[in-house]
Amino acid sequence: MKKIVIVGLGLIGGSLAAALRDFEDYTVTGVDNDEEVLRFAREQGIANELTCDAEAAVREGDLVVCCLHPKGITDFLKRYSRMFKPGSLVSDVCGVKSAVMEAASALPDSIDFIGGHPMAGKEKGGIWNFSPGLFKGAHYLITPSHGSRSENIELMGRIADYIGARDLIITSPEQHDRIIAYTSQIMHVLACSICEEPDMFDCLGFEGGSFRDCTRVAALDAKLWTELFSMNGDALSGVIKRLEDSLSAYREIIEQKDEQALYEKLKYASDRKKRMNIEHARGDDYREKT
Amino acid sequence: MKKIVIVGLGLIGGSLAAALRDFEDYTVTGVDNDEEVLRFAREQGIANELTCDAEAAVREGDLVVCCLHPKGITDFLKRYSRMFKPGSLVSDVCGVKSAVMEAASALPDSIDFIGGHPMAGKEKGGIWNFSPGLFKGAHYLITPSHGSRSENIELMGRIADYIGARDLIITSPEQHDRIIAYTSQIMHVLACSICEEPDMFDCLGFEGGSFRDCTRVAALDAKLWTELFSMNGDALSGVIKRLEDSLSAYREIIEQKDEQALYEKLKYASDRKKRMNIEHARGDDYREKT
Repeated sequence: MKKIVIVGLGLIGGSLAAALRDFEDYTVTGVDNDEEVLRFAREQGIANELTCDAEAAVREGDLVVCCLHPKGITDFLKRYSRMFKPGSLVSDVCGVKSAVMEAASALPDSIDFIGGHPMAGKEKGGIWNFSPGLFKGAHYLITPSHGSRSENIELMGRIADYIGARDLIITSPEQHDRIIAYTSQIMHVLACSICEEPDMFDCLGFEGGSFRDCTRVAALDAKLWTELFSMNGDALSGVIKRLEDSLSAYREIIEQKDEQALYEKLKYASDRKKRMNIEHARGDDYREKT
Repeated sequence: MKKIVIVGLGLIGGSLAAALRDFEDYTVTGVDNDEEVLRFAREQGIANELTCDAEAAVREGDLVVCCLHPKGITDFLKRYSRMFKPGSLVSDVCGVKSAVMEAASALPDSIDFIGGHPMAGKEKGGIWNFSPGLFKGAHYLITPSHGSRSENIELMGRIADYIGARDLIITSPEQHDRIIAYTSQIMHVLACSICEEPDMFDCLGFEGGSFRDCTRVAALDAKLWTELFSMNGDALSGVIKRLEDSLSAYREIIEQKDEQALYEKLKYASDRKKRMNIEHARGDDYREKT
Protein backbone atom coordinates (compact mmCIF):
# COMPACT_ATOMS: atom_id res chain seq x y z
CA MET A 1 0.00 0.00 0.00
CA LYS A 2 1.14 3.55 -0.72
CA LYS A 3 0.62 6.40 1.71
CA ILE A 4 -1.21 9.70 1.46
CA VAL A 5 -0.28 11.99 4.34
CA ILE A 6 -2.63 14.86 5.16
CA VAL A 7 -0.87 17.45 7.28
CA GLY A 8 -3.26 19.63 9.28
CA LEU A 9 -6.72 18.30 10.08
CA GLY A 10 -8.88 21.38 9.89
CA LEU A 11 -12.07 21.63 7.83
CA ILE A 12 -10.22 21.08 4.55
CA GLY A 13 -7.63 18.57 5.75
CA GLY A 14 -10.20 16.55 7.69
CA SER A 15 -12.66 16.54 4.81
CA LEU A 16 -9.94 15.62 2.31
CA ALA A 17 -8.69 12.75 4.46
CA ALA A 18 -12.23 11.43 4.82
CA ALA A 19 -12.94 11.88 1.12
CA LEU A 20 -9.76 9.95 0.20
CA ARG A 21 -10.53 6.86 2.30
CA ASP A 22 -10.10 3.77 0.11
CA PHE A 23 -8.64 5.71 -2.79
CA GLU A 24 -6.88 3.23 -5.08
CA ASP A 25 -4.08 1.41 -3.26
CA TYR A 26 -3.42 4.20 -0.78
CA THR A 27 -3.84 4.43 2.94
CA VAL A 28 -4.44 7.83 4.53
CA THR A 29 -2.42 9.16 7.45
CA GLY A 30 -3.69 12.26 9.22
CA VAL A 31 -1.25 14.53 11.03
CA ASP A 32 -2.15 17.14 13.60
CA ASN A 33 -0.54 18.46 16.76
CA ASP A 34 -3.82 18.88 18.64
CA GLU A 35 -4.75 15.82 20.71
CA GLU A 36 -8.43 16.68 20.67
CA VAL A 37 -8.43 16.89 16.89
CA LEU A 38 -6.70 13.51 16.64
CA ARG A 39 -9.17 11.93 19.05
CA PHE A 40 -12.13 13.29 17.08
CA ALA A 41 -10.58 12.14 13.79
CA ARG A 42 -10.06 8.66 15.27
CA GLU A 43 -13.65 8.45 16.52
CA GLN A 44 -14.96 9.50 13.13
CA GLY A 45 -12.70 7.12 11.23
CA ILE A 46 -11.36 9.96 9.14
CA ALA A 47 -8.04 8.26 8.31
CA ASN A 48 -6.32 4.87 8.52
CA GLU A 49 -3.64 6.25 10.79
CA LEU A 50 -3.48 9.34 12.95
CA THR A 51 -0.37 10.85 14.46
CA CYS A 52 1.16 13.99 15.85
CA ASP A 53 4.57 12.99 14.50
CA ALA A 54 4.76 14.99 11.28
CA GLU A 55 8.34 14.03 10.53
CA ALA A 56 7.77 10.28 10.70
CA ALA A 57 4.62 10.59 8.57
CA VAL A 58 6.24 12.81 5.98
CA ARG A 59 9.23 10.47 5.61
CA GLU A 60 6.88 7.67 4.55
CA GLY A 61 4.44 9.68 2.46
CA ASP A 62 4.13 8.94 -1.25
CA LEU A 63 1.79 11.91 -1.47
CA VAL A 64 1.83 14.62 1.20
CA VAL A 65 -0.94 17.22 1.12
CA CYS A 66 -0.26 20.21 3.31
CA CYS A 67 -3.59 21.53 4.66
CA LEU A 68 -2.34 24.20 7.06
CA HIS A 69 -3.02 27.94 6.90
CA PRO A 70 -1.06 29.81 4.18
CA LYS A 71 1.91 30.81 6.31
CA GLY A 72 1.81 27.43 8.01
CA ILE A 73 2.25 25.82 4.59
CA THR A 74 5.26 27.90 3.55
CA ASP A 75 6.82 27.34 6.99
CA PHE A 76 6.17 23.62 6.79
CA LEU A 77 7.76 23.30 3.35
CA LYS A 78 10.86 25.06 4.65
CA ARG A 79 11.08 23.09 7.87
CA TYR A 80 10.45 19.62 6.39
CA SER A 81 12.19 20.27 3.09
CA ARG A 82 14.81 17.53 3.58
CA MET A 83 12.45 15.01 5.15
CA PHE A 84 10.05 14.31 2.29
CA LYS A 85 10.50 10.84 0.81
CA PRO A 86 12.60 11.00 -2.37
CA GLY A 87 10.39 10.62 -5.41
CA SER A 88 7.27 11.67 -3.54
CA LEU A 89 4.62 14.12 -4.64
CA VAL A 90 3.85 17.05 -2.35
CA SER A 91 0.81 19.29 -2.70
CA ASP A 92 -1.20 21.80 -0.67
CA VAL A 93 -4.64 23.39 -0.56
CA CYS A 94 -3.77 27.07 -0.20
CA GLY A 95 -5.99 29.76 -1.75
CA VAL A 96 -2.98 31.72 -3.03
CA LYS A 97 -0.33 30.02 -5.09
CA SER A 98 2.61 32.32 -5.97
CA ALA A 99 3.95 32.47 -2.42
CA VAL A 100 3.53 28.71 -1.95
CA MET A 101 5.19 27.87 -5.27
CA GLU A 102 8.08 30.10 -4.35
CA ALA A 103 8.55 28.31 -1.03
CA ALA A 104 8.26 24.97 -2.84
CA SER A 105 10.98 25.90 -5.31
CA ALA A 106 13.50 25.30 -2.53
CA LEU A 107 12.51 21.61 -2.20
CA PRO A 108 15.06 19.00 -3.35
CA ASP A 109 14.84 18.02 -7.04
CA SER A 110 13.63 14.56 -6.14
CA ILE A 111 10.39 16.01 -4.75
CA ASP A 112 7.62 16.91 -7.19
CA PHE A 113 5.52 19.80 -5.88
CA ILE A 114 2.13 20.45 -7.48
CA GLY A 115 0.27 23.34 -5.85
CA GLY A 116 -3.42 22.67 -5.27
CA HIS A 117 -6.51 24.74 -4.53
CA PRO A 118 -9.75 22.81 -4.23
CA MET A 119 -12.30 25.65 -4.27
CA ALA A 120 -14.42 24.46 -1.40
CA GLY A 121 -15.10 25.68 2.08
CA LYS A 122 -17.67 26.37 4.74
CA GLU A 123 -18.35 29.21 7.15
CA LYS A 124 -17.76 26.88 10.07
CA GLY A 125 -14.16 25.76 10.18
CA GLY A 126 -12.38 23.05 12.10
CA ILE A 127 -12.45 19.28 11.77
CA TRP A 128 -15.72 19.29 13.75
CA ASN A 129 -17.41 20.43 10.57
CA PHE A 130 -15.64 18.03 8.18
CA SER A 131 -17.59 16.49 5.36
CA PRO A 132 -16.32 13.91 2.86
CA GLY A 133 -18.67 15.55 0.34
CA LEU A 134 -17.17 19.02 0.78
CA PHE A 135 -15.47 18.99 -2.63
CA LYS A 136 -18.44 17.81 -4.66
CA GLY A 137 -18.89 20.05 -7.69
CA ALA A 138 -15.92 22.28 -6.80
CA HIS A 139 -13.22 23.30 -9.21
CA TYR A 140 -9.86 21.77 -8.25
CA LEU A 141 -7.12 24.13 -9.43
CA ILE A 142 -3.53 22.95 -9.64
CA THR A 143 -0.26 24.72 -10.38
CA PRO A 144 2.41 22.20 -11.37
CA SER A 145 6.11 23.03 -11.00
CA HIS A 146 8.29 23.30 -14.08
CA GLY A 147 9.52 19.75 -13.76
CA SER A 148 6.28 18.14 -12.56
CA ARG A 149 5.84 14.61 -13.85
CA SER A 150 2.83 13.82 -15.98
CA GLU A 151 1.96 10.75 -13.91
CA ASN A 152 1.69 13.02 -10.86
CA ILE A 153 -0.62 15.42 -12.68
CA GLU A 154 -2.65 12.37 -13.68
CA LEU A 155 -2.74 11.29 -10.04
CA MET A 156 -4.09 14.72 -9.03
CA GLY A 157 -6.75 14.31 -11.71
CA ARG A 158 -7.84 10.93 -10.30
CA ILE A 159 -7.91 12.41 -6.81
CA ALA A 160 -10.06 15.33 -7.97
CA ASP A 161 -12.37 12.83 -9.62
CA TYR A 162 -12.51 10.56 -6.59
CA ILE A 163 -13.45 13.32 -4.17
CA GLY A 164 -16.20 14.52 -6.52
CA ALA A 165 -14.63 17.72 -7.81
CA ARG A 166 -16.23 19.17 -10.91
CA ASP A 167 -12.97 19.35 -12.81
CA LEU A 168 -9.21 19.71 -12.54
CA ILE A 169 -7.97 23.02 -13.89
CA ILE A 170 -4.25 23.42 -14.60
CA THR A 171 -2.99 26.96 -14.31
CA SER A 172 0.07 29.04 -13.42
CA PRO A 173 0.51 30.57 -9.96
CA GLU A 174 0.40 34.09 -11.43
CA GLN A 175 -2.80 33.47 -13.37
CA HIS A 176 -4.34 31.68 -10.40
CA ASP A 177 -3.69 34.57 -8.01
CA ARG A 178 -4.80 37.24 -10.46
CA ILE A 179 -8.10 35.49 -11.17
CA ILE A 180 -8.79 34.38 -7.62
CA ALA A 181 -8.60 37.99 -6.42
CA TYR A 182 -11.67 38.51 -8.58
CA THR A 183 -13.59 35.24 -8.29
CA SER A 184 -13.12 34.68 -4.59
CA GLN A 185 -11.21 37.23 -2.53
CA ILE A 186 -13.23 40.30 -3.51
CA MET A 187 -16.45 38.45 -2.57
CA HIS A 188 -15.10 38.12 0.95
CA VAL A 189 -14.12 41.81 1.11
CA LEU A 190 -17.60 42.70 -0.12
CA ALA A 191 -19.40 40.47 2.33
CA CYS A 192 -17.39 41.97 5.20
CA SER A 193 -17.98 45.51 3.97
CA ILE A 194 -21.72 44.88 3.94
CA CYS A 195 -21.57 43.54 7.49
CA GLU A 196 -19.84 46.69 8.73
CA GLU A 197 -22.97 48.76 8.05
CA PRO A 198 -23.87 50.25 11.45
CA ASP A 199 -27.61 49.58 11.03
CA MET A 200 -27.26 45.93 10.06
CA PHE A 201 -28.99 44.49 13.10
CA ASP A 202 -31.99 46.75 12.59
CA CYS A 203 -32.46 45.06 9.25
CA LEU A 204 -33.34 41.66 10.66
CA GLY A 205 -36.58 40.60 9.09
CA PHE A 206 -35.86 42.47 5.88
CA GLU A 207 -33.20 40.21 4.37
CA GLY A 208 -33.87 38.49 1.10
CA GLY A 209 -31.94 35.63 -0.42
CA SER A 210 -29.52 38.06 -2.05
CA PHE A 211 -28.46 39.43 1.34
CA ARG A 212 -27.95 35.99 2.82
CA ASP A 213 -26.06 34.76 -0.24
CA CYS A 214 -23.79 37.78 -0.53
CA THR A 215 -22.92 38.01 3.16
CA ARG A 216 -22.64 34.25 3.76
CA VAL A 217 -18.84 34.24 3.46
CA ALA A 218 -18.44 37.16 5.88
CA ALA A 219 -18.54 34.63 8.73
CA LEU A 220 -14.91 33.94 7.93
CA ASP A 221 -11.75 32.96 9.78
CA ALA A 222 -10.17 36.41 10.13
CA LYS A 223 -6.64 35.07 10.62
CA LEU A 224 -6.78 32.86 7.54
CA TRP A 225 -8.18 35.57 5.30
CA THR A 226 -5.75 38.19 6.57
CA GLU A 227 -2.99 35.88 5.32
CA LEU A 228 -4.69 35.15 2.02
CA PHE A 229 -5.36 38.84 1.29
CA SER A 230 -1.87 39.88 2.36
CA MET A 231 -0.22 37.28 0.13
CA ASN A 232 -2.14 38.61 -2.87
CA GLY A 233 -2.36 42.30 -2.05
CA ASP A 234 -1.49 43.78 -5.45
CA ALA A 235 -4.04 41.79 -7.42
CA LEU A 236 -6.72 42.24 -4.78
CA SER A 237 -6.30 45.99 -4.40
CA GLY A 238 -6.62 46.34 -8.18
CA VAL A 239 -9.89 44.43 -8.20
CA ILE A 240 -11.24 46.46 -5.28
CA LYS A 241 -10.39 49.69 -7.11
CA ARG A 242 -12.24 48.58 -10.25
CA LEU A 243 -15.27 47.65 -8.17
CA GLU A 244 -15.25 51.04 -6.42
CA ASP A 245 -15.26 52.68 -9.86
CA SER A 246 -18.07 50.49 -11.07
CA LEU A 247 -20.22 51.22 -8.00
CA SER A 248 -19.55 54.90 -8.34
CA ALA A 249 -20.73 54.77 -11.97
CA TYR A 250 -24.00 53.18 -10.85
CA ARG A 251 -24.40 55.78 -8.13
CA GLU A 252 -23.92 58.67 -10.52
CA ILE A 253 -26.46 57.32 -12.98
CA ILE A 254 -28.97 56.78 -10.17
CA GLU A 255 -28.37 60.27 -8.78
CA GLN A 256 -28.82 61.76 -12.24
CA LYS A 257 -32.08 59.78 -12.59
CA ASP A 258 -30.89 58.61 -15.99
CA GLU A 259 -33.21 55.62 -16.33
CA GLN A 260 -32.16 54.81 -19.87
CA ALA A 261 -28.47 54.59 -18.92
CA LEU A 262 -29.37 52.57 -15.83
CA TYR A 263 -31.42 50.16 -17.90
CA GLU A 264 -28.62 49.71 -20.41
CA LYS A 265 -26.05 49.07 -17.70
CA LEU A 266 -28.26 46.51 -15.95
CA LYS A 267 -29.12 44.86 -19.26
CA TYR A 268 -25.44 44.58 -20.18
CA ALA A 269 -24.51 43.05 -16.82
CA SER A 270 -27.46 40.68 -16.65
CA ASP A 271 -26.86 39.46 -20.20
CA ARG A 272 -23.26 38.70 -19.26
CA LYS A 273 -24.35 36.82 -16.14
CA LYS A 274 -26.88 34.77 -18.10
CA ARG A 275 -24.18 33.90 -20.65
CA MET A 276 -21.83 33.00 -17.78
CA ASN A 277 -24.46 30.64 -16.37
CA ILE A 278 -24.78 28.92 -19.73
CA GLU A 279 -21.03 28.61 -20.17
CA HIS A 280 -20.69 27.27 -16.66
CA ALA A 281 -23.33 24.66 -17.37
CA ARG A 282 -21.56 23.75 -20.60
CA GLY A 283 -18.43 23.23 -18.51
CA ASP A 284 -16.71 20.53 -20.48
CA ASP A 285 -15.56 22.99 -23.12
CA TYR A 286 -12.94 24.47 -20.86
CA ARG A 287 -12.29 21.44 -18.72
CA GLU A 288 -8.75 20.25 -18.81
CA LYS A 289 -8.76 16.72 -17.61
CA THR A 290 -5.60 14.75 -17.78
CA MET B 1 -66.97 31.60 -1.50
CA LYS B 2 -64.91 34.79 -1.44
CA LYS B 3 -62.56 35.77 -4.23
CA ILE B 4 -58.86 36.47 -4.35
CA VAL B 5 -57.89 38.15 -7.60
CA ILE B 6 -54.25 38.00 -8.67
CA VAL B 7 -53.52 40.64 -11.30
CA GLY B 8 -50.49 39.86 -13.43
CA LEU B 9 -49.33 36.26 -13.73
CA GLY B 10 -45.57 36.54 -13.82
CA LEU B 11 -43.23 34.58 -11.59
CA ILE B 12 -44.60 36.16 -8.41
CA GLY B 13 -48.26 36.38 -9.42
CA GLY B 14 -48.29 32.86 -10.83
CA SER B 15 -46.55 31.43 -7.79
CA LEU B 16 -48.81 33.33 -5.41
CA ALA B 17 -51.96 32.16 -7.18
CA ALA B 18 -50.74 28.57 -7.05
CA ALA B 19 -49.69 28.88 -3.41
CA LEU B 20 -53.12 30.27 -2.48
CA ARG B 21 -55.15 27.43 -4.02
CA ASP B 22 -57.67 26.17 -1.43
CA PHE B 23 -56.88 28.97 1.03
CA GLU B 24 -59.77 29.11 3.53
CA ASP B 25 -63.07 29.85 1.80
CA TYR B 26 -61.52 31.72 -1.13
CA THR B 27 -61.32 30.93 -4.80
CA VAL B 28 -58.45 32.35 -6.84
CA THR B 29 -58.91 34.26 -10.07
CA GLY B 30 -55.84 34.93 -12.19
CA VAL B 31 -55.78 37.94 -14.51
CA ASP B 32 -53.38 38.47 -17.36
CA ASN B 33 -53.61 40.03 -20.80
CA ASP B 34 -51.34 37.48 -22.46
CA GLU B 35 -53.23 34.54 -23.96
CA GLU B 36 -50.22 32.26 -23.77
CA VAL B 37 -49.81 32.99 -20.08
CA LEU B 38 -53.47 32.24 -19.45
CA ARG B 39 -53.26 28.98 -21.40
CA PHE B 40 -50.22 27.87 -19.43
CA ALA B 41 -51.85 28.86 -16.13
CA ARG B 42 -54.93 26.86 -17.09
CA GLU B 43 -52.91 23.78 -18.03
CA GLN B 44 -51.03 23.97 -14.73
CA GLY B 45 -54.20 24.51 -12.68
CA ILE B 46 -52.72 27.64 -11.16
CA ALA B 47 -56.07 29.26 -10.35
CA ASN B 48 -59.77 28.44 -10.17
CA GLU B 49 -60.58 31.01 -12.81
CA LEU B 50 -58.47 32.70 -15.44
CA THR B 51 -59.39 35.78 -17.38
CA CYS B 52 -58.06 38.70 -19.37
CA ASP B 53 -60.92 40.89 -18.14
CA ALA B 54 -59.28 42.80 -15.29
CA GLU B 55 -62.24 45.06 -14.69
CA ALA B 56 -64.77 42.26 -14.23
CA ALA B 57 -62.39 40.39 -11.93
CA VAL B 58 -61.53 43.42 -9.83
CA ARG B 59 -65.20 44.30 -9.36
CA GLU B 60 -65.76 40.92 -7.73
CA GLY B 61 -62.54 40.62 -5.76
CA ASP B 62 -62.65 40.53 -1.97
CA LEU B 63 -58.87 40.61 -2.03
CA VAL B 64 -57.00 41.89 -5.06
CA VAL B 65 -53.24 41.42 -5.17
CA CYS B 66 -51.50 43.45 -7.83
CA CYS B 67 -48.48 41.52 -9.12
CA LEU B 68 -47.40 43.76 -11.98
CA HIS B 69 -44.08 45.60 -12.35
CA PRO B 70 -43.72 48.68 -10.09
CA LYS B 71 -44.97 51.25 -12.58
CA GLY B 72 -47.62 48.79 -13.72
CA ILE B 73 -48.90 48.67 -10.14
CA THR B 74 -49.16 52.44 -9.68
CA ASP B 75 -50.82 52.76 -13.11
CA PHE B 76 -53.25 49.96 -12.28
CA LEU B 77 -54.26 51.53 -8.98
CA LYS B 78 -54.98 54.80 -10.76
CA ARG B 79 -56.85 53.24 -13.65
CA TYR B 80 -59.01 50.83 -11.63
CA SER B 81 -59.40 53.09 -8.61
CA ARG B 82 -63.21 53.31 -8.86
CA MET B 83 -63.76 49.68 -9.85
CA PHE B 84 -62.57 47.84 -6.75
CA LYS B 85 -65.41 46.26 -4.80
CA PRO B 86 -66.42 48.45 -1.84
CA GLY B 87 -65.07 46.98 1.39
CA SER B 88 -62.39 44.99 -0.38
CA LEU B 89 -58.75 44.64 0.53
CA VAL B 90 -56.16 45.53 -2.11
CA SER B 91 -52.49 44.65 -1.87
CA ASP B 92 -49.43 44.35 -4.10
CA VAL B 93 -46.01 42.69 -4.18
CA CYS B 94 -43.76 45.58 -5.16
CA GLY B 95 -40.19 45.80 -3.87
CA VAL B 96 -40.50 49.52 -3.12
CA LYS B 97 -43.35 50.82 -1.05
CA SER B 98 -43.40 54.63 -0.76
CA ALA B 99 -44.38 55.21 -4.39
CA VAL B 100 -47.02 52.48 -4.24
CA MET B 101 -48.52 53.74 -0.97
CA GLU B 102 -48.70 57.22 -2.45
CA ALA B 103 -50.62 55.94 -5.49
CA ALA B 104 -52.87 53.91 -3.17
CA SER B 105 -53.71 56.96 -1.09
CA ALA B 106 -55.99 58.09 -3.95
CA LEU B 107 -58.19 54.99 -3.63
CA PRO B 108 -61.76 55.50 -2.28
CA ASP B 109 -62.11 55.28 1.51
CA SER B 110 -64.07 52.04 1.25
CA ILE B 111 -60.97 50.27 -0.10
CA ASP B 112 -58.35 49.08 2.37
CA PHE B 113 -54.88 49.07 0.83
CA ILE B 114 -52.11 47.13 2.55
CA GLY B 115 -48.83 47.24 0.67
CA GLY B 116 -47.02 43.92 0.48
CA HIS B 117 -43.53 42.71 -0.31
CA PRO B 118 -42.95 38.98 -0.07
CA MET B 119 -39.15 38.80 -0.26
CA ALA B 120 -38.91 35.96 -2.73
CA GLY B 121 -37.79 35.65 -6.30
CA LYS B 122 -35.82 33.71 -8.83
CA GLU B 123 -33.37 34.57 -11.58
CA LYS B 124 -35.73 33.11 -14.15
CA GLY B 125 -38.88 35.17 -14.37
CA GLY B 126 -42.24 34.55 -15.99
CA ILE B 127 -45.05 32.20 -15.09
CA TRP B 128 -43.10 29.38 -16.78
CA ASN B 129 -40.93 29.30 -13.68
CA PHE B 130 -43.75 29.54 -11.10
CA SER B 131 -43.50 27.53 -7.93
CA PRO B 132 -46.10 27.30 -5.17
CA GLY B 133 -43.18 26.90 -2.76
CA LEU B 134 -41.50 30.15 -3.84
CA PHE B 135 -42.37 31.97 -0.62
CA LYS B 136 -41.24 29.27 1.79
CA GLY B 137 -39.03 30.80 4.48
CA ALA B 138 -39.26 34.31 3.04
CA HIS B 139 -40.03 37.42 5.05
CA TYR B 140 -43.41 38.88 4.06
CA LEU B 141 -43.26 42.64 4.63
CA ILE B 142 -46.45 44.69 4.75
CA THR B 143 -47.11 48.42 4.95
CA PRO B 144 -50.69 49.05 6.10
CA SER B 145 -52.42 52.34 5.32
CA HIS B 146 -53.39 54.68 8.15
CA GLY B 147 -56.94 53.35 8.27
CA SER B 148 -56.18 49.68 7.57
CA ARG B 149 -58.52 47.35 9.43
CA SER B 150 -57.06 44.87 11.88
CA GLU B 151 -59.01 41.97 10.38
CA ASN B 152 -57.30 42.70 7.06
CA ILE B 153 -53.87 42.71 8.67
CA GLU B 154 -54.83 39.40 10.26
CA LEU B 155 -55.87 38.09 6.86
CA MET B 156 -52.45 39.04 5.46
CA GLY B 157 -50.89 37.15 8.37
CA ARG B 158 -52.88 34.00 7.58
CA ILE B 159 -51.93 34.33 3.91
CA ALA B 160 -48.24 34.68 4.77
CA ASP B 161 -48.59 31.59 6.96
CA TYR B 162 -50.44 29.61 4.33
CA ILE B 163 -47.90 30.23 1.60
CA GLY B 164 -45.08 29.23 3.95
CA ALA B 165 -43.51 32.63 4.62
CA ARG B 166 -41.19 32.79 7.59
CA ASP B 167 -43.00 35.70 9.17
CA LEU B 168 -45.12 38.77 8.56
CA ILE B 169 -43.28 42.00 9.27
CA ILE B 170 -45.29 45.20 9.64
CA THR B 171 -43.39 48.33 8.69
CA SER B 172 -43.80 51.82 7.28
CA PRO B 173 -43.13 52.57 3.60
CA GLU B 174 -40.26 54.89 4.52
CA GLN B 175 -38.56 52.37 6.77
CA HIS B 176 -39.15 49.61 4.23
CA ASP B 177 -37.52 51.52 1.40
CA ARG B 178 -34.58 52.71 3.48
CA ILE B 179 -33.78 49.20 4.71
CA ILE B 180 -34.45 47.43 1.44
CA ALA B 181 -31.87 49.61 -0.31
CA TYR B 182 -29.36 47.92 1.97
CA THR B 183 -30.68 44.37 2.33
CA SER B 184 -31.68 43.80 -1.27
CA GLN B 185 -31.07 46.54 -3.83
CA ILE B 186 -27.35 47.04 -3.18
CA MET B 187 -26.79 43.27 -3.59
CA HIS B 188 -28.17 43.55 -7.10
CA VAL B 189 -25.96 46.56 -7.90
CA LEU B 190 -22.97 44.65 -6.57
CA ALA B 191 -23.73 41.50 -8.50
CA CYS B 192 -24.06 43.52 -11.70
CA SER B 193 -20.87 45.44 -10.99
CA ILE B 194 -18.98 42.18 -10.59
CA CYS B 195 -20.37 40.92 -13.89
CA GLU B 196 -19.14 44.00 -15.74
CA GLU B 197 -15.51 42.99 -15.15
CA PRO B 198 -14.05 42.70 -18.67
CA ASP B 199 -12.17 39.46 -17.91
CA MET B 200 -15.12 37.63 -16.38
CA PHE B 201 -15.37 34.94 -19.03
CA ASP B 202 -11.68 34.10 -18.66
CA CYS B 203 -12.44 33.22 -15.06
CA LEU B 204 -14.61 30.23 -15.89
CA GLY B 205 -13.27 27.31 -13.94
CA PHE B 206 -12.04 29.51 -11.11
CA GLU B 207 -15.34 30.40 -9.47
CA GLY B 208 -16.02 29.29 -5.94
CA GLY B 209 -19.32 29.27 -4.13
CA SER B 210 -18.84 32.89 -3.09
CA PHE B 211 -18.70 34.03 -6.71
CA ARG B 212 -21.79 32.07 -7.68
CA ASP B 213 -23.72 33.23 -4.60
CA CYS B 214 -22.80 36.88 -4.95
CA THR B 215 -23.45 37.13 -8.69
CA ARG B 216 -26.57 34.92 -8.73
CA VAL B 217 -28.94 37.88 -8.70
CA ALA B 218 -27.14 39.63 -11.57
CA ALA B 219 -29.22 37.54 -13.97
CA LEU B 220 -32.00 40.03 -13.37
CA ASP B 221 -34.89 41.56 -15.28
CA ALA B 222 -33.26 44.87 -16.26
CA LYS B 223 -36.55 46.66 -16.82
CA LEU B 224 -37.96 45.67 -13.42
CA TRP B 225 -34.83 46.63 -11.53
CA THR B 226 -34.45 49.93 -13.36
CA GLU B 227 -37.90 50.80 -11.99
CA LEU B 228 -37.12 49.56 -8.48
CA PHE B 229 -33.82 51.45 -8.29
CA SER B 230 -35.30 54.61 -9.75
CA MET B 231 -38.20 54.61 -7.29
CA ASN B 232 -35.73 54.42 -4.39
CA GLY B 233 -32.81 56.42 -5.76
CA ASP B 234 -31.98 58.52 -2.70
CA ALA B 235 -31.75 55.64 -0.26
CA LEU B 236 -29.90 53.46 -2.74
CA SER B 237 -27.30 56.02 -3.71
CA GLY B 238 -26.55 56.60 -0.01
CA VAL B 239 -25.96 52.90 0.54
CA ILE B 240 -23.74 52.66 -2.54
CA LYS B 241 -21.66 55.60 -1.31
CA ARG B 242 -21.12 53.98 2.09
CA LEU B 243 -20.05 50.75 0.41
CA GLU B 244 -17.59 52.60 -1.83
CA ASP B 245 -16.06 54.14 1.30
CA SER B 246 -15.87 50.81 3.04
CA LEU B 247 -14.18 49.13 0.07
CA SER B 248 -11.75 51.97 -0.22
CA ALA B 249 -10.83 51.54 3.46
CA TYR B 250 -10.07 47.85 2.84
CA ARG B 251 -8.01 48.74 -0.22
CA GLU B 252 -5.91 51.27 1.66
CA ILE B 253 -5.15 48.85 4.47
CA ILE B 254 -4.18 46.17 1.97
CA GLU B 255 -1.98 48.58 0.01
CA GLN B 256 -0.30 49.69 3.24
CA LYS B 257 0.29 46.01 4.10
CA ASP B 258 -1.12 46.72 7.55
CA GLU B 259 -1.92 43.13 8.52
CA GLN B 260 -2.95 43.98 12.06
CA ALA B 261 -5.53 46.53 10.89
CA LEU B 262 -6.74 44.12 8.23
CA TYR B 263 -7.14 41.36 10.79
CA GLU B 264 -9.09 43.62 13.12
CA LYS B 265 -11.40 44.79 10.38
CA LEU B 266 -12.10 41.23 9.20
CA LYS B 267 -12.59 40.05 12.76
CA TYR B 268 -15.06 42.87 13.47
CA ALA B 269 -17.09 42.11 10.33
CA SER B 270 -17.04 38.35 10.74
CA ASP B 271 -18.10 38.60 14.39
CA ARG B 272 -21.04 40.75 13.33
CA LYS B 273 -22.02 38.27 10.63
CA LYS B 274 -21.84 35.37 13.06
CA ARG B 275 -24.04 37.30 15.50
CA MET B 276 -26.44 38.10 12.64
CA ASN B 277 -26.69 34.40 11.81
CA ILE B 278 -27.57 33.61 15.41
CA GLU B 279 -30.16 36.38 15.62
CA HIS B 280 -31.67 35.27 12.33
CA ALA B 281 -31.95 31.72 13.64
CA ARG B 282 -33.51 33.00 16.83
CA GLY B 283 -36.08 34.70 14.63
CA ASP B 284 -39.11 34.66 16.85
CA ASP B 285 -37.74 37.48 18.96
CA TYR B 286 -38.44 40.04 16.31
CA ARG B 287 -41.31 38.31 14.60
CA GLU B 288 -44.48 40.30 14.55
CA LYS B 289 -47.26 37.91 13.87
CA THR B 290 -50.81 39.12 14.01
